[in-house]
Amino acid sequence: MRWIAKAAAVTGTVLLMTAGGVNAVEIHNGSISEAEVLTTQKAWGDALVAISREYDEKGVKPAQDLAEKVIDAAYGYQLGPVLFKPTLTQEPQTFRTDREGALSYFVGHNPKYPADTGFALKGWREVEVKNAAILLDGEYATTLGKVSFTDKDGKVTTVDKSWTFKKDDEGTIRIVQHHSSLPYATK
Amino acid sequence: MRWIAKAAAVTGTVLLMTAGGVNAVEIHNGSISEAEVLTTQKAWGDALVAISREYDEKGVKPAQDLAEKVIDAAYGYQLGPVLFKPTLTQEPQTFRTDREGALSYFVGHNPKYPADTGFALKGWREVEVKNAAILLDGEYATTLGKVSFTDKDGKVTTVDKSWTFKKDDEGTIRIVQHHSSLPYATK
Amino acid sequence: MRWIAKAAAVTGTVLLMTAGGVNAVEIHNGSISEAEVLTTQKAWGDALVAISREYDEKGVKPAQDLAEKVIDAAYGYQLGPVLFKPTLTQEPQTFRTDREGALSYFVGHNPKYPADTGFALKGWREVEVKNAAILLDGEYATTLGKVSFTDKDGKVTTVDKSWTFKKDDEGTIRIVQHHSSLPYATK
Amino acid sequence: MRWIAKAAAVTGTVLLMTAGGVNAVEIHNGSISEAEVLTTQKAWGDALVAISREYDEKGVKPAQDLAEKVIDAAYGYQLGPVLFKPTLTQEPQTFRTDREGALSYFVGHNPKYPADTGFALKGWREVEVKNAAILLDGEYATTLGKVSFTDKDGKVTTVDKSWTFKKDDEGTIRIVQHHSSLPYATK
Repeated sequence: MRWIAKAAAVTGTVLLMTAGGVNAVEIHNGSISEAEVLTTQKAWGDALVAISREYDEKGVKPAQDLAEKVIDAAYGYQLGPVLFKPTLTQEPQTFRTDREGALSYFVGHNPKYPADTGFALKGWREVEVKNAAILLDGEYATTLGKVSFTDKDGKVTTVDKSWTFKKDDEGTIRIVQHHSSLPYATK
Repeated sequence: MRWIAKAAAVTGTVLLMTAGGVNAVEIHNGSISEAEVLTTQKAWGDALVAISREYDEKGVKPAQDLAEKVIDAAYGYQLGPVLFKPTLTQEPQTFRTDREGALSYFVGHNPKYPADTGFALKGWREVEVKNAAILLDGEYATTLGKVSFTDKDGKVTTVDKSWTFKKDDEGTIRIVQHHSSLPYATK
Repeated sequence: MRWIAKAAAVTGTVLLMTAGGVNAVEIHNGSISEAEVLTTQKAWGDALVAISREYDEKGVKPAQDLAEKVIDAAYGYQLGPVLFKPTLTQEPQTFRTDREGALSYFVGHNPKYPADTGFALKGWREVEVKNAAILLDGEYATTLGKVSFTDKDGKVTTVDKSWTFKKDDEGTIRIVQHHSSLPYATK
Repeated sequence: MRWIAKAAAVTGTVLLMTAGGVNAVEIHNGSISEAEVLTTQKAWGDALVAISREYDEKGVKPAQDLAEKVIDAAYGYQLGPVLFKPTLTQEPQTFRTDREGALSYFVGHNPKYPADTGFALKGWREVEVKNAAILLDGEYATTLGKVSFTDKDGKVTTVDKSWTFKKDDEGTIRIVQHHSSLPYATK
């Protein structure tokens, strides 16, 4: 199961017609397209639902195994620190710039992070992304919008979310920045 | 008054000693340095305090005039939409991707944004940035951390904040993404 | 007359259908496309022919005026030094990293560059670009290939040419690197 | 033997003093510095000399083995086509966008490239790079200048050379564009 699709044709050969005849040109495109951004966001939501289902059907260990695969495929912890501020974290463990902190946030059960209850274990059945704006600039794309999570009881939770994606040298699109927060509530 | 310092020497000439003698090399550096990031963050905080003082000392109109200058100097609305999720905004006006929405957030008094009370008018006297991580990649730098605001009564408000800065073609560093949120509070 | 077409829609609003209805998303795309690269290369060739015709029909001064406009529109001397190695230059004036040196190369008549005879004044009537490979990465695109120039007598000159194009903050595509050379001839 | 030094500290932790005390910040810097460019150019020259010496002392096979290592370490053929126009190539094999073509140019002995005599086998003992200009922009650096090769008889050959370097995801700096040409000679 591949969570984040590798770009189908980062490098290819294109035939162009010119006055002088057909000309084969090698094209290497390192830029992310809008379509790739939308596909990657959808894959992130599908992966979250898949972890929730794995937990409900098979228990915590298979859910953790799946979450590790998702994090390794979708996030950029191989590239350096990820600027990840999850929705439900608090001081002194607000930021999860390393892989272990991200894994604990999604599936909990890590004594080093006692407040983590496992965001991906909360029975999610559907994720919808509504982008307000998208910036595309080469290997990087940044998005801002609302993301809504529906659980198995039909309850909907909506968050404000920023993501920065980077297409790595192999054409895999990875999250390098992720800031999520509950909407501001007037007291 | 310059809020965001233009890079002192984006383009310059450097003398290098080689076996063959002195060699003048023209260097053009479009990348943001860590020092520039820290300076730009500090300038953002200083500007917020300056707007607060202007409001307290001279009233709303001078504060608005100053806020316009700050937004034009520090944000990238000239370049396209800015992915700005301010701390205290709500549906259906959560995101402020245009200049008018940003200005209203900082100084209020815009009937199109009835919920805005003016974040920059709240008597701020000191701003401190504590970065957790910084990514530098050419024209872009992304930061994640805590920002604390102290008001004239000594009350401190701390938020979780992500910024992406872009050095534009003229060497000015501009905010192109800004996600700010109150820390998650366990109910 | 526009030599280098500004990108039609760097920033735009796109309507996306989602489960929740229609969603307007602001898109800002700073990346160069393959089509923009090909259009820009063709515009460079057309501009060279236009300068040649202006010289043949109206004389050196109008040709120089046109060349200035072309250089300001097509090259990136506003952004910093351009890494320009023209086909026919020699020591100690091989490299033309500033605007004056580029202008002299194309239209000559500058006593500071006594060897320049004006490459754009040589009666060109057709320019054909055959790319071997193109790299696309965000604001930058780099090309490598053969460029053939046909003059009014039907004589064809072919050179090896590398170009790096940068899309600037206003969406104009500019040459920031240009290395041109006659094919290696076995002695 | 490492030909191209990996950046010593792409990712690191920095301690910053703030009003609130010491603050540990994770820094990830994907940008190439001027010093890295100069080091990489010098390493390219040293590698060429090393292949020449290997050939003179041990013969063609060890020189070829070394050249393969150099190409794999210094060029970006892993990332896609490299826009390589070597100094001494001709139609129809002017451009060497794949690894095999590059290897043949440097060490010859490939029947598919009958005109290649092996540029790295020509007894080079010293290489000097004189940059005219350098552009730095994040992962990419582009240089333009003269490169002089001195052989074992003291004969000097000088070429005009453009290089574009890219720092890959692992921090290795790789050549993705390389245009080299003999100086234009007035006939």
